[in-house]
Amino acid sequence: MSHLRGSIKKIDEALSLKWIKLNKITYIDCKGNERFWESASRTTKKGDTDGVDILATVKKDGKKYLIVVVQYRVPVDNLVIEFPAGLVDNDENFVNSAIRELKEETGYRTTPDKVLLTSPILPLECGMSCANARMVVIDLEETICEEQELEGSENIDIFYLPMDNLFNELEELRKKLNCVVSIQLYTFALGLNFNNFFK
Amino acid sequence: MSHLRGSIKKIDEALSLKWIKLNKITYIDCKGNERFWESASRTTKKGDTDGVDILATVKKDGKKYLIVVVQYRVPVDNLVIEFPAGLVDNDENFVNSAIRELKEETGYRTTPDKVLLTSPILPLECGMSCANARMVVIDLEETICEEQELEGSENIDIFYLPMDNLFNELEELRKKLNCVVSIQLYTFALGLNFNNFFK
Repeated sequence: MSHLRGSIKKIDEALSLKWIKLNKITYIDCKGNERFWESASRTTKKGDTDGVDILATVKKDGKKYLIVVVQYRVPVDNLVIEFPAGLVDNDENFVNSAIRELKEETGYRTTPDKVLLTSPILPLECGMSCANARMVVIDLEETICEEQELEGSENIDIFYLPMDNLFNELEELRKKLNCVVSIQLYTFALGLNFNNFFK
Repeated sequence: MSHLRGSIKKIDEALSLKWIKLNKITYIDCKGNERFWESASRTTKKGDTDGVDILATVKKDGKKYLIVVVQYRVPVDNLVIEFPAGLVDNDENFVNSAIRELKEETGYRTTPDKVLLTSPILPLECGMSCANARMVVIDLEETICEEQELEGSENIDIFYLPMDNLFNELEELRKKLNCVVSIQLYTFALGLNFNNFFK
């Protein structure tokens, strides 16, 4: 696929705030032309991974549920229904980040052997930003839930949505809360129940 | 859920480039405390929707395939496997954007009556940006594919991935191209084939 690849010539930092910076990028496109692009990025990235999204399932009364969180998100000025998620701390292994964030946001304590799958690096919005996340799929089975460990500015509610009707239940929750759903949770639910709607 | 909602007090523009700007937001959290957040946003948004992602299926030899695109994305300096996608033009209805972008990027011509589903607004990275997209699900059935209509800086390859083994085939394509997959395409594939892997 070398006919598709471009390359970056230089990156000029236009402004760096505490958490986010704006860059002006000069690049060579795949046809050899010099072009320009603008991008935003986090200032906090240490390794290759900005954050983790945790796809955690739990069984209750013999039925499988997905754990989703709801919180106020300032950039969109709305409540957002999302996978539990968080940023990878300095020098932290991303699986450990997922286990830590799951405990903080939902109260569920787990261990690396319950991790079913970890994804490669997944860009979140590659037209505008280099920010990325990894998915960590965890089966909690029938586990005891403890207290959340939220930071001062956090206030997060938890919901359990049935896996066999996730798409419809997610849409009902969104309407009930008059809020929005993160695109990765929406497309997961759409995929999971796709064959219920479309042949 | 009023106990979760905060509110924005004021937004100060820190820097506005041609396509992206950085904002410093002063907000009141759900406990009544004044706090600060930083966010990036597109300068190009006219209505409520930044862009569209097109989930387009097509039948070939009796089997259903998803159409994905691969292109070099400057912010991540890599090839990215994605849904066909694009920004909503000035005053354009987002379904028309999806139909236009699908034609430009893949050569497939379609009409609004082939649209099976449209999503509400879906934030792409709500911890950092207000950017959003809507999913548009289109069944192309057995349709004739014409020429792509790419802009000067664009060079996009198309792949057909079988729906019944999307997750594995996507992972194989990613490894073959040594590139990355957008998070919304990855989680769709994970959902679609989830029950193949996990009970």
